[in-house]
Amino acid sequence: MRTAAIENLLPAYKWMREYRFQDFPGDLTAGIITAILLVPQAMAYSILAGLPPEVGLYASIAPPILYALFGSSRALAVGPVAVASLMVASALGTIAVPKSPDYIASALILAVLTGIFLIFMGVAKLGFLANFLSHPVMSGFTSAAAIVIAFSQLNHLLGLNIPRGSRIDEAVLYVFSHPGDANLTTVTVSAAGLILLLFLRWYLNPLLDRFGLHSGVGNALVKAGPMFVVILMTFLSAKMLWNETAGLVVVGDIPAGLPPLTIPAFDVGVWTHLSASAALIALVSFVESVAIARVLASRRRQKIDVNQELVGLGVANIGAAFTGGSPVCGGFSRSVVNFSAGANTQLAAIFTAILIALSVLFFTPLFYYLPQAVLAAIIIIAVLGLVDLKALRVNWLYSKSDAAAWIVTFAVVMVEGIELGIVAGILVSIVLFLWRSSQPHIAVVGRVGGSEHFRNVKRHKVQTCPHVLAIRVDESLFFANTRSFENYVLSAVVDQPEVKHVVFICSAINAIDGSALESLEQLVSDLRSASVTFHLAEVKGPVMDRLEKTDFLEHLKPGNVFLSTHDAFVALDCT
Amino acid sequence: MRTAAIENLLPAYKWMREYRFQDFPGDLTAGIITAILLVPQAMAYSILAGLPPEVGLYASIAPPILYALFGSSRALAVGPVAVASLMVASALGTIAVPKSPDYIASALILAVLTGIFLIFMGVAKLGFLANFLSHPVMSGFTSAAAIVIAFSQLNHLLGLNIPRGSRIDEAVLYVFSHPGDANLTTVTVSAAGLILLLFLRWYLNPLLDRFGLHSGVGNALVKAGPMFVVILMTFLSAKMLWNETAGLVVVGDIPAGLPPLTIPAFDVGVWTHLSASAALIALVSFVESVAIARVLASRRRQKIDVNQELVGLGVANIGAAFTGGSPVCGGFSRSVVNFSAGANTQLAAIFTAILIALSVLFFTPLFYYLPQAVLAAIIIIAVLGLVDLKALRVNWLYSKSDAAAWIVTFAVVMVEGIELGIVAGILVSIVLFLWRSSQPHIAVVGRVGGSEHFRNVKRHKVQTCPHVLAIRVDESLFFANTRSFENYVLSAVVDQPEVKHVVFICSAINAIDGSALESLEQLVSDLRSASVTFHLAEVKGPVMDRLEKTDFLEHLKPGNVFLSTHDAFVALDCT
Repeated sequence: MRTAAIENLLPAYKWMREYRFQDFPGDLTAGIITAILLVPQAMAYSILAGLPPEVGLYASIAPPILYALFGSSRALAVGPVAVASLMVASALGTIAVPKSPDYIASALILAVLTGIFLIFMGVAKLGFLANFLSHPVMSGFTSAAAIVIAFSQLNHLLGLNIPRGSRIDEAVLYVFSHPGDANLTTVTVSAAGLILLLFLRWYLNPLLDRFGLHSGVGNALVKAGPMFVVILMTFLSAKMLWNETAGLVVVGDIPAGLPPLTIPAFDVGVWTHLSASAALIALVSFVESVAIARVLASRRRQKIDVNQELVGLGVANIGAAFTGGSPVCGGFSRSVVNFSAGANTQLAAIFTAILIALSVLFFTPLFYYLPQAVLAAIIIIAVLGLVDLKALRVNWLYSKSDAAAWIVTFAVVMVEGIELGIVAGILVSIVLFLWRSSQPHIAVVGRVGGSEHFRNVKRHKVQTCPHVLAIRVDESLFFANTRSFENYVLSAVVDQPEVKHVVFICSAINAIDGSALESLEQLVSDLRSASVTFHLAEVKGPVMDRLEKTDFLEHLKPGNVFLSTHDAFVALDCT
Repeated sequence: MRTAAIENLLPAYKWMREYRFQDFPGDLTAGIITAILLVPQAMAYSILAGLPPEVGLYASIAPPILYALFGSSRALAVGPVAVASLMVASALGTIAVPKSPDYIASALILAVLTGIFLIFMGVAKLGFLANFLSHPVMSGFTSAAAIVIAFSQLNHLLGLNIPRGSRIDEAVLYVFSHPGDANLTTVTVSAAGLILLLFLRWYLNPLLDRFGLHSGVGNALVKAGPMFVVILMTFLSAKMLWNETAGLVVVGDIPAGLPPLTIPAFDVGVWTHLSASAALIALVSFVESVAIARVLASRRRQKIDVNQELVGLGVANIGAAFTGGSPVCGGFSRSVVNFSAGANTQLAAIFTAILIALSVLFFTPLFYYLPQAVLAAIIIIAVLGLVDLKALRVNWLYSKSDAAAWIVTFAVVMVEGIELGIVAGILVSIVLFLWRSSQPHIAVVGRVGGSEHFRNVKRHKVQTCPHVLAIRVDESLFFANTRSFENYVLSAVVDQPEVKHVVFICSAINAIDGSALESLEQLVSDLRSASVTFHLAEVKGPVMDRLEKTDFLEHLKPGNVFLSTHDAFVALDCT
């Protein structure tokens, strides 16, 4: 009992208590490999968010440790990710200049707000809201965001100065209208970086296989690819002093030392202004993280707890805000790396955080000559895999309304920006959903042969009587579909003037809400004034219990409640 | 075929073509009685909307005639109504001074916008959106609106000058802090009016019954009550010249003559500003009108067509905008009066409109001395019946979430105003709805005795096998509930490590949308990596047809699709 109470507060207590020594090597290896992947990614995504590179590193220290303590997934690797970084840039772009103190301070506020939203959703059990960020919306959103992110790297890749906030078409136009402005060294470094990264990703593994290297080692080497490219290009850039001789932009000074203690400034205006953005970041972070966590947990028959995930991610974000970091969430590629490198528990994440803390303490001078073009190349390779046109194709073939949600989300992100895009996607999903929900499946049924089975008159050869109309609704009745049902019944009664009895077959009705109950009462009266009696049949136990609490059954008279449709047909002289 | 085409464009063609001479007396009587009820109501609601009284009369001429031609209900009486008038006052209150030319011009714009929204909803078949204005929300909304309306009449009832835009508490405070300001004559006239109206409503019918008067005649006399009070009090007021001697506010000059042709001014700013209000007025008008039309139609086994109703109401509102009127919709009391007085077709409404046109042409001078206090009393008596605490009580007993929607709507209307109130109500409904939709009813089933029947393990004594988990979902799978289903299955598999096969019983699944399909694919992979095979059973024909279009069944292997749960249990060695 006490253990359960502690686990409720601190889910990590469970894996700590159950920790087995044989889990240790896996956790250590995974921690190291993930750190090697994370260092360049953290800096790259930080620059993408318009922040100095150290902010991303800070966000990779305290937040994953806090997530390790409060989250429910054993393999999720938390830190800065591409899409959330783009959302940060989009949220802060209008209120301050990137990398300025104001901008950095606002990023802290965004992180604390994101954390508050996540924890609130967790405590209020609002995790279900994430259901309405449907697959097609998330897919259209990340696909478009990936393209926006890729184009946002044109400046770094080509050494240009495309004005901040340019749309993709404006950026492309700028590139073509300033052909001479590109920096040749930068373009060369970018091209070399991209080619190397692609080579490592596509060809290294088969190559190593051919040389008979164990594929686990091969995988680890592939995942370390970005770090390898970073080291190689930084070495070259430092050796040749390209930043001085050839105008290559390098990362420059990164302050050494552990993350500072930062307190997000409280300013009602800024908090209000950023709250909508923070809510969207929270929603997207949550959906992404849970999707990853669930996939990884199921592979080992482990569970995740959605509301605990919200709390874990929320605490991680608040931790980020107080240690100079930007909003964080679970990253797909790094979680998979962590998992496949053998992470058994969140101890792996703690090792990663320690390694990143050590880098920040001792190794930041080594990154001085790291070309930003290389980070841009890493970002581009990382996000290209997010463009998911297959989902569009599959949805198009299978469900046009899902494809519509994908297209709307994608198009609005491209044209109006990512925040409006996700809002548009959610709205389209909800409207389509409301539309579908308002159309319950309704069937008129008749008797099959001489049996006691009753089936849809449209699909089966059945016997019916002109004075009895038996209607089955294949969904619970509630306010969204009750008017359709009313309309259907009234309209059917008008079309068949000889009908004297309507039998409403409730075999598929799991619940009747207050609106639907009122509608039913109205329907009973309306039918009575048209000399038609309304009956119920096959009412489920729990539904009947609730109906008995009201005066509906009184009101139904002379209509009856029949145990079965067969009983109803017999009683109404339809045999 | 030609007839059908004409009827599509002009639904009135149907009743005109089928018109029988025996319908005429009923239509004529109903037309006259409704006109007698409508004249004072139209003026009163117009004043409530902050408009001069003639605007309400104008809105009772062209709009009902247009509705008669384009609407689908045979008994709906269209014109200015109390709640919509309050919404007009609330929408225009911030942009102009009541009764000023700007205010009247804005009312025309509001009417034309309301009409455009209604027609748009009709043409785009968006009538289903009205489902989300659920019963409890409408009930809470009209109850609160009725109370707001009643208190808004304090000025007219007491002859005070409570500042415009005061909240109810401020108005009450004003009354008590200005005890000497009330005008004694006004208070007397109000009290007399209220008492007379209540007497006529409650006691006239039983009294007439006792004198053996036919109850139809009695009903007609009761309905003419407001007109009788108007005539009596206007006569007294004119005779005594109370407006000059005792400071009683009277209606004053009403311009004689038919409605002017007015063209709503087009101003992007004003149109944009008013569009949200117009959308809400359109939604409320539509829901109210359809509810009334449906009740009346069902009593005579007639149909209404929801989308045609939208068009009819929309054309009526646009007609109002071009003939100097304010937004209109179907009024409950006057439609019931029209119906019970014998209206068979919309010819009754045309008679009403003609009579009102005649009043405007010839009788407006007679209304000069009509005390506004009498109109205020008429409003109060009319709206008191809208306060529906019974609905709150019933919902509270039956469904707490419906009661919550009622309370939220009511409270927000009272505290923040009617527009925010209805928006809050809709949001609460949708969130509750989303929440419910995201929790499908899921049952684990087992075999009943030695039979081929399978039932919920929680409710029946059934046989199961440890290595087979058979799960039935009692709703179609779509993006809102698919994650719950995934969670349920994954969690069940973790809790029962001996499970090797999951059988998903699709007997209640009418559709699987794109998101759910993706989820299922993911689930199949997740389970496979946990060495569990996923099978389907009892897949309905249409669902199977669509699945066969995708590569899902390929992906499912080695999982099978079984015809019945029994087949699945046999094949999986669970007998």
